[in-house]
Amino acid sequence: MNDLLKLLDCSKDDIVSILDLADQLKYEKKHHIPHRHLDGKSIGLIFHKVSTRTRVSFEAGMYQLGGQPMFLSDRDLQTGRGEPVQDTARALSRYLDGIVIRTYEQKDVEILAKYSDIPVINGLTNFAHPCQVLADLMTVREHFAQLEDLKMCFIGDGFNMCNSLIVGCLKVGMEVSVATPEGYEPHPDVLAFAEQQKKLGAKFMLTHDVRQAAAGADVLFTDAWTAMGQEEQAEMRREIFQGFTVDHELLSCCKQGVMVQHCMPAYRGEEITAEVLEEHADEIFEECENRLHAQKAVMVTLMSDRDEYIY
Amino acid sequence: MNDLLKLLDCSKDDIVSILDLADQLKYEKKHHIPHRHLDGKSIGLIFHKVSTRTRVSFEAGMYQLGGQPMFLSDRDLQTGRGEPVQDTARALSRYLDGIVIRTYEQKDVEILAKYSDIPVINGLTNFAHPCQVLADLMTVREHFAQLEDLKMCFIGDGFNMCNSLIVGCLKVGMEVSVATPEGYEPHPDVLAFAEQQKKLGAKFMLTHDVRQAAAGADVLFTDAWTAMGQEEQAEMRREIFQGFTVDHELLSCCKQGVMVQHCMPAYRGEEITAEVLEEHADEIFEECENRLHAQKAVMVTLMSDRDEYIY
Amino acid sequence: MNDLLKLLDCSKDDIVSILDLADQLKYEKKHHIPHRHLDGKSIGLIFHKVSTRTRVSFEAGMYQLGGQPMFLSDRDLQTGRGEPVQDTARALSRYLDGIVIRTYEQKDVEILAKYSDIPVINGLTNFAHPCQVLADLMTVREHFAQLEDLKMCFIGDGFNMCNSLIVGCLKVGMEVSVATPEGYEPHPDVLAFAEQQKKLGAKFMLTHDVRQAAAGADVLFTDAWTAMGQEEQAEMRREIFQGFTVDHELLSCCKQGVMVQHCMPAYRGEEITAEVLEEHADEIFEECENRLHAQKAVMVTLMSDRDEYIY
Repeated sequence: MNDLLKLLDCSKDDIVSILDLADQLKYEKKHHIPHRHLDGKSIGLIFHKVSTRTRVSFEAGMYQLGGQPMFLSDRDLQTGRGEPVQDTARALSRYLDGIVIRTYEQKDVEILAKYSDIPVINGLTNFAHPCQVLADLMTVREHFAQLEDLKMCFIGDGFNMCNSLIVGCLKVGMEVSVATPEGYEPHPDVLAFAEQQKKLGAKFMLTHDVRQAAAGADVLFTDAWTAMGQEEQAEMRREIFQGFTVDHELLSCCKQGVMVQHCMPAYRGEEITAEVLEEHADEIFEECENRLHAQKAVMVTLMSDRDEYIY
Repeated sequence: MNDLLKLLDCSKDDIVSILDLADQLKYEKKHHIPHRHLDGKSIGLIFHKVSTRTRVSFEAGMYQLGGQPMFLSDRDLQTGRGEPVQDTARALSRYLDGIVIRTYEQKDVEILAKYSDIPVINGLTNFAHPCQVLADLMTVREHFAQLEDLKMCFIGDGFNMCNSLIVGCLKVGMEVSVATPEGYEPHPDVLAFAEQQKKLGAKFMLTHDVRQAAAGADVLFTDAWTAMGQEEQAEMRREIFQGFTVDHELLSCCKQGVMVQHCMPAYRGEEITAEVLEEHADEIFEECENRLHAQKAVMVTLMSDRDEYIY
Repeated sequence: MNDLLKLLDCSKDDIVSILDLADQLKYEKKHHIPHRHLDGKSIGLIFHKVSTRTRVSFEAGMYQLGGQPMFLSDRDLQTGRGEPVQDTARALSRYLDGIVIRTYEQKDVEILAKYSDIPVINGLTNFAHPCQVLADLMTVREHFAQLEDLKMCFIGDGFNMCNSLIVGCLKVGMEVSVATPEGYEPHPDVLAFAEQQKKLGAKFMLTHDVRQAAAGADVLFTDAWTAMGQEEQAEMRREIFQGFTVDHELLSCCKQGVMVQHCMPAYRGEEITAEVLEEHADEIFEECENRLHAQKAVMVTLMSDRDEYIY
């Protein structure tokens, strides 16, 4: 792996190796075992959208690895003055050892990676959110001690989270069901991948019926109805997504002891009820914490000079 | 102590312990004695108002303690998108080891602390400025080698600085006099505390007569007439605060060798004359420097895993 | 040297010492030899203009030296509230060990240095860009293994880059030729310096004829026609600077194997053609990288407690 642009680019082995390393790094942090694998290295965080969790977890994680995070907002970069990405990429490659980018278009991330000599990590685009899904898989594996054959159900908008969740879960051998409103289905590339996997024996279902999707699920995942940059659609979306709320009734369709995941921020009474959120808060904030460990594993995997950290 | 939200929550012992540790940390820095008590830890600085001194002193101080400061402005956080504080607090508690918050309402600081599993430090609210007052007490104690029985006089607006100064000075056994214009008296909770202390033998006076307040003072403290967020009142305040300028004439009412303190920024010709400011610049910039040491002591006290740093 | 405000203040020895140290620090970084000369120290980066290269290279460089960079934009400082620079300077001097400032007026940098007890580094003003020129001289010396007697030609606006390039190149014994449109000549102070140097035997030519300037040049340097803060003049400048494009034809006037330098960002088809930029990209991005090493040398020279780093 040279970059983490989207999970479609990753093998099952890539994903499992990152999860294994993430578990180890979480253990080491908890027990105060030094793990300064990126001492002397710097990572730039280029954020074209605001962020709490992504930014803070990458900054703290890089520091814990001995390295330097450098938060670069739009306002502080010449890219705002129209410098072509190939020039910015080549300049940053001379100073930094890696880049995390949070932006809108997936192609901007791909182009940045193409022109950079250093690893590029997708910190969220409209198409994909691979770091979040790695944290989710880590959290599910901690909870169930396995991933294969568990059923993941996603309820909501077939947007970045949904896209990456489908790909990540199928790659590691999980069953996936997705319920979206009509017109809010996942990206065609992701559906094509899912169809291809089905031919190889994977289980995947796309429906507009939330109860059908949730039936027998081990994990129920949801996300805000309105993403950053879609604020003017919020009212319309609240109507369209009526019935796509994760509530007690929907949980009753799932397997007993279903796990609930949410990448946050949550809008109570919209995609999830306050009751479900608070009853599953331990699982959800563990997922939140695992952003830190999973992203540290990604940075070590891509940026370290050493080949092996599992000892 | 779990948090530093306001000095009303602190005992005299809490305050004196922080001052003792601050003295020690200042000595250690001066003599290049390592004091990396917060190695591996991260603190978030959530600033809803601009800041020079608070921000730079916390960032440099955290670095000197071996830790990572993370400056998080409004513009860079999801709180701007309306995420409830209990969710932000729980998320940040998974990544950080402490939070400094500078904001308007004291209740926002209290709520953040309630929902956070990590220490919260008040970096300035409309009600209180405890870090500044700890630095002031440190500076006064350095100058006079004691605090008990000294007379502190505050001239100006009965706002955050005044509130915290009254509480801090009374807690450590100083006499306090305050002169404000009518209608600009300190917060009722602070006056209630002062009344209670008077019953226990403390000396406290609130007046609208600057000369009466300054009579016999060992330390004269003032602050800008117009705080951040009150800019549209600046003209009106310049009229109301006529006569509340710390000048040579007012100093002549104080004890010989009176110390002048100002938390800065200063507006020459308003709350203080240029002459008084420059004649007392050594004291005032020492106070400014002591922000660094006092805040390091606060961070170590709240965030360190060890119990004892005075050796 | 106490500060780096402009190259006019530097001796040839000052410049050569910085270049020697920069070479050494580049070697040490490449070979992973620790060089934490500024461990425990903090530098503030006060930026009133956006920046990619200056900011990222100073931040990464300070970290590599073991120190703490602190990026302070306009938006985050009380200077925006009108605090006099002498107060900000005295406050920052209590917390920091150095300041880099990027702003418009040279006099603001000079005043900041006057009131600060800590070294001040000019990170770009309308008058000068000394850090960039140190990186350029480093890159030229790497390429030709010498500086004396090489001919440097600058094509474009007689603004900050041109001013500093003239001074730096003449100080180290290079020949300098400059071609600008009429009305866009270098600063009078710089021209006065160049005249004075000519009397001591230096070779300097100012012309409006690009071919005359480029004749026999070893290095051709250009810069964007429109600097930050001049955006509203962009259209007018595109007309005035017609004919001042560095293209293959102009290169053919230079010495065989001429080196091309550009401080970036570049505007293809304006001051340089896409072909020339890409053919000389290795030289140009090496110059870009050398910002890092040259600025590390400046920081060590000004901020280190030790006297000697060349061992």
